Amino acid sequence: MKARIRITLKNGVLDPQGKAIQNALSALGITGVADVRQGKYIEVELAETSEDAAKATVERMCKDLLANSVIENYAYELQRA
Amino acid sequence: MKARIRITLKNGVLDPQGKAIQNALSALGITGVADVRQGKYIEVELAETSEDAAKATVERMCKDLLANSVIENYAYELQRA
Repeated sequence: MKARIRITLKNGVLDPQGKAIQNALSALGITGVADVRQGKYIEVELAETSEDAAKATVERMCKDLLANSVIENYAYELQRA
Repeated sequence: MKARIRITLKNGVLDPQGKAIQNALSALGITGVADVRQGKYIEVELAETSEDAAKATVERMCKDLLANSVIENYAYELQRA
Protein backbone atom coordinates (compact mmCIF):
# COMPACT_ATOMS: atom_id res chain seq x y z
CA MET A 1 0.00 0.00 0.00
CA LYS A 2 1.28 3.46 -0.86
CA ALA A 3 0.84 6.53 1.34
CA ARG A 4 1.19 10.03 -0.10
CA ILE A 5 1.86 12.40 2.77
CA ARG A 6 1.72 16.19 2.51
CA ILE A 7 3.23 18.24 5.31
CA THR A 8 2.41 21.95 5.34
CA LEU A 9 3.20 24.84 7.63
CA LYS A 10 0.29 25.97 9.78
CA ASN A 11 -1.34 29.29 8.97
CA GLY A 12 0.50 32.12 10.63
CA VAL A 13 3.86 30.37 10.55
CA LEU A 14 6.32 32.37 8.45
CA ASP A 15 7.46 30.66 5.26
CA PRO A 16 10.60 32.38 3.89
CA GLN A 17 11.11 29.61 1.32
CA GLY A 18 7.63 30.23 -0.08
CA LYS A 19 8.32 33.97 -0.20
CA ALA A 20 11.57 33.32 -2.07
CA ILE A 21 9.67 31.27 -4.66
CA GLN A 22 7.07 34.02 -4.97
CA ASN A 23 9.80 36.61 -5.61
CA ALA A 24 11.52 34.36 -8.14
CA LEU A 25 8.23 33.81 -10.00
CA SER A 26 7.66 37.55 -10.15
CA ALA A 27 11.25 38.05 -11.41
CA LEU A 28 10.46 35.53 -14.17
CA GLY A 29 7.49 37.64 -15.19
CA ILE A 30 4.83 35.27 -13.87
CA THR A 31 2.22 37.57 -12.38
CA GLY A 32 -1.01 37.06 -10.46
CA VAL A 33 0.56 34.97 -7.72
CA ALA A 34 -1.06 35.98 -4.44
CA ASP A 35 0.75 33.57 -2.14
CA VAL A 36 3.16 30.62 -2.17
CA ARG A 37 3.65 28.13 0.67
CA GLN A 38 6.21 25.37 0.49
CA GLY A 39 5.76 22.08 2.26
CA LYS A 40 7.09 18.56 2.09
CA TYR A 41 5.76 15.62 0.14
CA ILE A 42 6.67 12.10 1.14
CA GLU A 43 5.70 8.84 -0.56
CA VAL A 44 5.91 5.76 1.61
CA GLU A 45 5.59 2.23 0.28
CA LEU A 46 4.09 0.03 3.00
CA ALA A 47 4.13 -3.75 3.13
CA GLU A 48 0.82 -3.53 5.05
CA THR A 49 -2.26 -4.53 3.03
CA SER A 50 -5.05 -3.66 5.47
CA GLU A 51 -6.22 -0.06 5.18
CA ASP A 52 -6.86 0.42 8.91
CA ALA A 53 -3.43 -0.88 9.90
CA ALA A 54 -1.75 1.23 7.20
CA LYS A 55 -3.61 4.30 8.47
CA ALA A 56 -2.42 3.67 12.02
CA THR A 57 1.17 3.25 10.83
CA VAL A 58 1.11 6.44 8.78
CA GLU A 59 -0.43 8.41 11.66
CA ARG A 60 2.34 7.19 13.92
CA MET A 61 5.03 8.10 11.37
CA CYS A 62 3.65 11.61 10.97
CA LYS A 63 3.29 12.23 14.69
CA ASP A 64 6.62 10.71 15.75
CA LEU A 65 8.93 11.73 12.95
CA LEU A 66 7.71 13.45 9.82
CA ALA A 67 5.69 16.43 11.02
CA ASN A 68 6.45 18.89 13.81
CA SER A 69 2.95 19.26 15.21
CA VAL A 70 3.75 22.65 16.77
CA ILE A 71 4.15 24.36 13.41
CA GLU A 72 3.06 21.81 10.79
CA ASN A 73 -0.09 20.05 9.64
CA TYR A 74 -0.13 16.78 7.79
CA ALA A 75 -2.56 15.07 5.46
CA TYR A 76 -2.28 11.84 3.53
CA GLU A 77 -3.97 9.52 1.09
CA LEU A 78 -3.61 5.78 0.91
CA GLN A 79 -3.57 3.94 -2.36
CA ARG A 80 -3.54 0.21 -3.02
CA ALA A 81 -0.45 -0.85 -4.94
CA MET B 1 -7.61 29.62 -7.65
CA LYS B 2 -5.31 27.39 -5.66
CA ALA B 3 -2.74 25.04 -7.20
CA ARG B 4 -1.31 22.13 -5.20
CA ILE B 5 1.94 21.10 -6.85
CA ARG B 6 3.83 17.90 -6.05
CA ILE B 7 7.40 17.55 -7.26
CA THR B 8 8.94 14.12 -7.05
CA LEU B 9 12.25 12.60 -8.07
CA LYS B 10 12.10 10.43 -11.17
CA ASN B 11 12.48 6.69 -10.75
CA GLY B 12 16.11 5.71 -10.70
CA VAL B 13 17.28 9.00 -9.21
CA LEU B 14 18.90 8.36 -5.84
CA ASP B 15 17.05 9.84 -2.86
CA PRO B 16 19.34 9.96 0.20
CA GLN B 17 16.80 12.04 2.14
CA GLY B 18 14.18 9.36 1.63
CA LYS B 19 16.64 6.69 2.71
CA ALA B 20 17.43 8.70 5.87
CA ILE B 21 13.71 8.85 6.69
CA GLN B 22 13.39 5.11 6.09
CA ASN B 23 16.28 4.42 8.49
CA ALA B 24 14.84 6.76 11.10
CA LEU B 25 11.43 5.03 10.87
CA SER B 26 13.07 1.67 11.35
CA ALA B 27 15.04 3.04 14.35
CA LEU B 28 11.69 4.17 15.83
CA GLY B 29 10.41 0.61 15.52
CA ILE B 30 8.05 1.29 12.62
CA THR B 31 8.40 -1.77 10.42
CA GLY B 32 6.98 -2.83 7.06
CA VAL B 33 8.27 0.23 5.21
CA ALA B 34 9.47 -0.92 1.80
CA ASP B 35 10.50 2.44 0.38
CA VAL B 36 10.39 6.17 1.13
CA ARG B 37 10.78 8.96 -1.42
CA GLN B 38 10.83 12.60 -0.42
CA GLY B 39 9.60 15.33 -2.72
CA LYS B 40 8.42 18.89 -2.49
CA TYR B 41 4.90 20.20 -2.07
CA ILE B 42 4.05 23.74 -3.05
CA GLU B 43 0.73 25.54 -2.70
CA VAL B 44 0.27 28.54 -4.96
CA GLU B 45 -2.59 30.99 -4.62
CA LEU B 46 -3.40 32.42 -8.04
CA ALA B 47 -5.41 35.54 -8.80
CA GLU B 48 -6.45 33.84 -12.08
CA THR B 49 -10.04 32.59 -12.14
CA SER B 50 -10.11 30.74 -15.47
CA GLU B 51 -9.04 27.11 -15.21
CA ASP B 52 -7.25 27.03 -18.58
CA ALA B 53 -5.24 30.16 -17.87
CA ALA B 54 -4.35 28.91 -14.38
CA LYS B 55 -3.20 25.60 -15.86
CA ALA B 56 -0.96 27.40 -18.34
CA THR B 57 0.53 29.54 -15.56
CA VAL B 58 1.22 26.54 -13.32
CA GLU B 59 2.80 24.60 -16.19
CA ARG B 60 5.08 27.54 -16.88
CA MET B 61 6.02 27.84 -13.17
CA CYS B 62 6.87 24.16 -12.94
CA LYS B 63 8.92 24.11 -16.15
CA ASP B 64 10.78 27.38 -15.59
CA LEU B 65 11.41 27.35 -11.85
CA LEU B 66 9.96 24.74 -9.56
CA ALA B 67 10.93 21.40 -11.08
CA ASN B 68 14.21 20.32 -12.61
CA SER B 69 12.89 18.30 -15.53
CA VAL B 70 16.10 16.27 -15.82
CA ILE B 71 15.57 14.54 -12.49
CA GLU B 72 12.10 15.53 -11.31
CA ASN B 73 8.48 14.99 -12.27
CA TYR B 74 5.67 17.29 -11.31
CA ALA B 75 1.93 16.94 -10.91
CA TYR B 76 -0.68 19.37 -9.72
CA GLU B 77 -4.33 19.88 -8.96
CA LEU B 78 -6.28 23.09 -9.26
CA GLN B 79 -8.96 24.06 -6.81
CA ARG B 80 -11.37 26.99 -6.90
CA ALA B 81 -10.95 29.24 -3.87
